[in-house]
Amino acid sequence: MSPDLGHKFEADELRPFEVAVIGGGIIGLAMTCGLLNRGIRVKLYEQAQAFGEVGAGIAFTACAQRCMEQLDPAILEAFWQAGAVPLSSSAGSTDPNDYLRWVDGFNSHPGRDPRWQEPLYELSAGVKGFVAVRRDEFASRLLKLLPADAFELQKRLEDIVDETVGGHGERTGRKVLVFADGTTATVDAVIGCDGIKSKVRELMLGRDNPASYPTYTHVAAYRAVIPMDTAIRLLGERKAKTFNNHVGPGANILHYAISNQTLVNITAFVSDEGEWPDHHKLTSDDGSKAHLQEVFARFNPTIVDLISVLPETLPKWAIFDLAEYPLPAFHSGRVVLAGDAAHASAPQHGAGAGIGMEDALCLVTLLDRVCRETAPPERPYAALEAAFASFDAVRRTRCQWFVNSSRRITDLHQQHEWGDPAKLLKVRSCFEEIKDRSHKIWHFDYEGMLKEAIGKYEELLSRRGA
Amino acid sequence: MSPDLGHKFEADELRPFEVAVIGGGIIGLAMTCGLLNRGIRVKLYEQAQAFGEVGAGIAFTACAQRCMEQLDPAILEAFWQAGAVPLSSSAGSTDPNDYLRWVDGFNSHPGRDPRWQEPLYELSAGVKGFVAVRRDEFASRLLKLLPADAFELQKRLEDIVDETVGGHGERTGRKVLVFADGTTATVDAVIGCDGIKSKVRELMLGRDNPASYPTYTHVAAYRAVIPMDTAIRLLGERKAKTFNNHVGPGANILHYAISNQTLVNITAFVSDEGEWPDHHKLTSDDGSKAHLQEVFARFNPTIVDLISVLPETLPKWAIFDLAEYPLPAFHSGRVVLAGDAAHASAPQHGAGAGIGMEDALCLVTLLDRVCRETAPPERPYAALEAAFASFDAVRRTRCQWFVNSSRRITDLHQQHEWGDPAKLLKVRSCFEEIKDRSHKIWHFDYEGMLKEAIGKYEELLSRRGA
Repeated sequence: MSPDLGHKFEADELRPFEVAVIGGGIIGLAMTCGLLNRGIRVKLYEQAQAFGEVGAGIAFTACAQRCMEQLDPAILEAFWQAGAVPLSSSAGSTDPNDYLRWVDGFNSHPGRDPRWQEPLYELSAGVKGFVAVRRDEFASRLLKLLPADAFELQKRLEDIVDETVGGHGERTGRKVLVFADGTTATVDAVIGCDGIKSKVRELMLGRDNPASYPTYTHVAAYRAVIPMDTAIRLLGERKAKTFNNHVGPGANILHYAISNQTLVNITAFVSDEGEWPDHHKLTSDDGSKAHLQEVFARFNPTIVDLISVLPETLPKWAIFDLAEYPLPAFHSGRVVLAGDAAHASAPQHGAGAGIGMEDALCLVTLLDRVCRETAPPERPYAALEAAFASFDAVRRTRCQWFVNSSRRITDLHQQHEWGDPAKLLKVRSCFEEIKDRSHKIWHFDYEGMLKEAIGKYEELLSRRGA
Repeated sequence: MSPDLGHKFEADELRPFEVAVIGGGIIGLAMTCGLLNRGIRVKLYEQAQAFGEVGAGIAFTACAQRCMEQLDPAILEAFWQAGAVPLSSSAGSTDPNDYLRWVDGFNSHPGRDPRWQEPLYELSAGVKGFVAVRRDEFASRLLKLLPADAFELQKRLEDIVDETVGGHGERTGRKVLVFADGTTATVDAVIGCDGIKSKVRELMLGRDNPASYPTYTHVAAYRAVIPMDTAIRLLGERKAKTFNNHVGPGANILHYAISNQTLVNITAFVSDEGEWPDHHKLTSDDGSKAHLQEVFARFNPTIVDLISVLPETLPKWAIFDLAEYPLPAFHSGRVVLAGDAAHASAPQHGAGAGIGMEDALCLVTLLDRVCRETAPPERPYAALEAAFASFDAVRRTRCQWFVNSSRRITDLHQQHEWGDPAKLLKVRSCFEEIKDRSHKIWHFDYEGMLKEAIGKYEELLSRRGA
C-alpha cells in the first residue's frame, strides 16, 4: 500500500459500506488494492485453493500503467518488480520506443531469398508503451500488497441472495454471498471480477440468458516457448528480440522475447470453422504440432521452420468472447461486473487486461466518491447504485467496442487474401484501420473518463434524490 | 474568382508551367477554380457536349466546406447559391446542428404499434456540418466561375504521349494530350479528375492492370423522389424532414429532404450476391419496384409502405469502387489522379466528394508552392514531380482507408443480424465504430495535411537536387 494516509478513513462510520470482490485474477487483485488504498472496506473471494494464474504473458499499454498507478502506486511498483519488460526494449537499438510490427508471414518474393519476409507496418507505442509481464508473477506480487484479512481462498460463489430479517422476511438491503463450502458473507455491494466464465454474470443475468455465457470466436490459439538462440537462428536477431506479428491467410503467429531475453514466447492463432466440442473445457495441453504444420504448410519457409521446432504437443486454448451476446448492462442494482466478466474479448489487441484496469480505476474512483458524500446515510444504497449505473454508462460502449474490435483485428490479421499476391495492396491497406483502433485503446483519456463518471454519478444521484 | 490580386502572377515567366485538368465533374471544376485563383495556367477538358451531372445530391461536411473556401472563397459561395441545404436544418427545431440518424428499419416491437421504429443512434455533425446540394446545380454554378478560355468541351481523352522534337525524337518533357476528335493539347502536367471510369488512370497504369478498373461492390442502389406530404404521412413529420438511415438485413434505405422541403430524396441500397452483367453500363432507369418490394417484404411496415409509393421503375446504379485493386500510387511522373479517379468509393459515408475536395486543396497548394520557388527553372519538372509525389505520400493512405471504410459501413448497415431480434444488442454495438469512422472523416486536420504536404515536397525536392 502506498502510505497516503491522509486519504484513509479511520472510523467505520466514515466507511459506510462493505464491498466483496469476486475473483482473484489480475483485475480482482488490482481492484481490491485500489479500494483498500482509499480506505474502503473490501474482501476478495477466490474459488481456487491458491492464487495461481496460467503462466501466459499479458501486456499493458502506457495508459493502463497510468491507471494502475492511479489505483495505487504500489500496483505499478509490483508490476515492474514482477519482471515487466517493454516489448521491444530488447531490440539492441538506441530507440527507446516500443513497437508493434507486422510482417508478411505468407509470401516469398521473386528474386529474393525465399525466407525473406516483407515488413508490412510498424506502430510506435512510445517509451514503455507496451510492456509485458507474466501473469503469475504479477498476481503473486499484487497478492503481497493485500493484508491477510483482505482475501479468502477456496470460496466458490454459488449464489447471491438478499439478506432478510424478522418473521416477515424484511429485506435489509444487504447481499448475502453463498459459497460452495456452505459459508456465507454479507456485504453491501458486489464486484464480479471472475473472468470469462463469470458466476456473478450468470447470477446477474440468469441461467437462460445467452448473454450469461461466452461463445466461440472460431479461433484457437497455441502457445510455445523456444530458446532465444533457436529464435535468432530462424528469425534473425532483430526479429527474434522484438514483437512481431506474422499475418497470413486463416492464421497468424506472433512472438516476443521473455525471461530477460533468454526465451521467445510464440502464439499461433488459427481460424477454425468447426464448433468447440466442450464449452466447459476451453484449454488443453494436447495441441498438435502436426495440425499447425498443416495449417502453416504454405506459409513463408521462415514460418514453416519456426513451427518445426515447436514441441509435438503444446498448450492450446479456444478463444471465447462476449461479442455474440453483449451484456445489456454491466450492473444490476448493487452488483457490478468488471474486466473479462463484463467484456471478455479475443486477445489480438494485447490490451484486454489494460481495459480491465480502466474499469477498476473507474469503479474505485466512484466508490471513493460515495464515501465522500458529506452526510453519508448509514447504508448509502442509492449512492452505490448510482455509482454502478454511472460505471455502466461510462464504460460499456468502450468495452463492447473493444470486444468487437478484437474480433475485427483477428479477421484483418487472417484475411484469406494475404495468400493472394495479386491482393497484397488491398490487404495491406488495413493498417490504417489497425492504427486507429490501436490508438483508440492506447491513447485513452482516462482522466476525462473519471470526470465523466463523477458527473454522471452526481446527475443520477440528484435525480434519485429529487 | 476572389479578388485576391496580390496572389496572382501577371507574367508567364512567373507561371512557369501549364496544367491540364481532365474531367469536368465537381472535383475537376473546383480544382480548376483553385488553380486559377492562384494564377496557375490551367485548362479543363471535358468529354461531354455540355457539363451535365446526374441530378443526385451530394453532401459536404464542414471540413469539406472549409477546403472549398481555401481553394477559392467563390466555390463556397457557389455552393450556397446552388441551393445547398443543411441535412437537418428542416427539423423545425431550434437545434442548429445537423444530425445523421439511424433507425431500426426491420423490427417491430411487441406491445407497440407495429409501425413504430426504434431510434438507434444519432450523430451531430455540428452547425452546417452535413450539407447537401444537387450535383447539377453546383456544377453549373462552378462553371460560371471559369473564364471561357479555361475549359473545352467534347474533348474525350484517348492518350497521353511524350512530346518530341527534331529528327532524333528528342523528348521535351512536355505531355501531349490526344483527344478522340484528332486534336491535341500540350502541357507540363496532367491532373486526372475523370471519375470512377477514369481514362487517365487506365493510361497511367496500363490496360492490363486490374487497378485500372473499378469492381462491383455487390451492392446496387435505387433512387426515387417523393412529395413531402406523402413522406410525412408515412414517416411522420420529424423523420420525413430530416436525414434518416433505416438499417436492416441485406439492405438499408436512407432519405433526406430536398428542394426547399417539398420533396424527399430516397436511396435504397440492396446487397446483391450476383455479378453485374455489363461493366460498361453502371446505371439504368429500369430499376424494378417489384424487386424492392421483395427485398424489403419482411421489413417494418413503415418501410414496406414507403416502398409501395415508389414508381414502378426507378433509376438504379451498380456501386463500383476501387477497394479490390487499390492504386499502387496516385501519380506517375507528372500525371496525377484526384477524386474518384484515384479512390472511387461506395457512397454510404456520404463524404466521397468531400474527400475529393481535400485532394484538390492539397494539389492546388502544392502547385502554388511550385510557382513560388525563388528561382524557378524554365520548366520546373523536378518540382512538379516532387509535388505529385508528395500528394501521393500525404493522401493515399487516408483515401484508400476511406474506400475500405465505405465498404465496411455498408456491411454494418446491412448486417444480416439486424433481422434477428436476439442479436439486436450485438448489431447495435456497431455505432461506436460508425462514430469513429465518421469523426475521422469529418474532423480532418486539413491544415496539418497541407503542412505535411509542403514538408514532404521540400524533402523530396532537396533529395532530387542533392
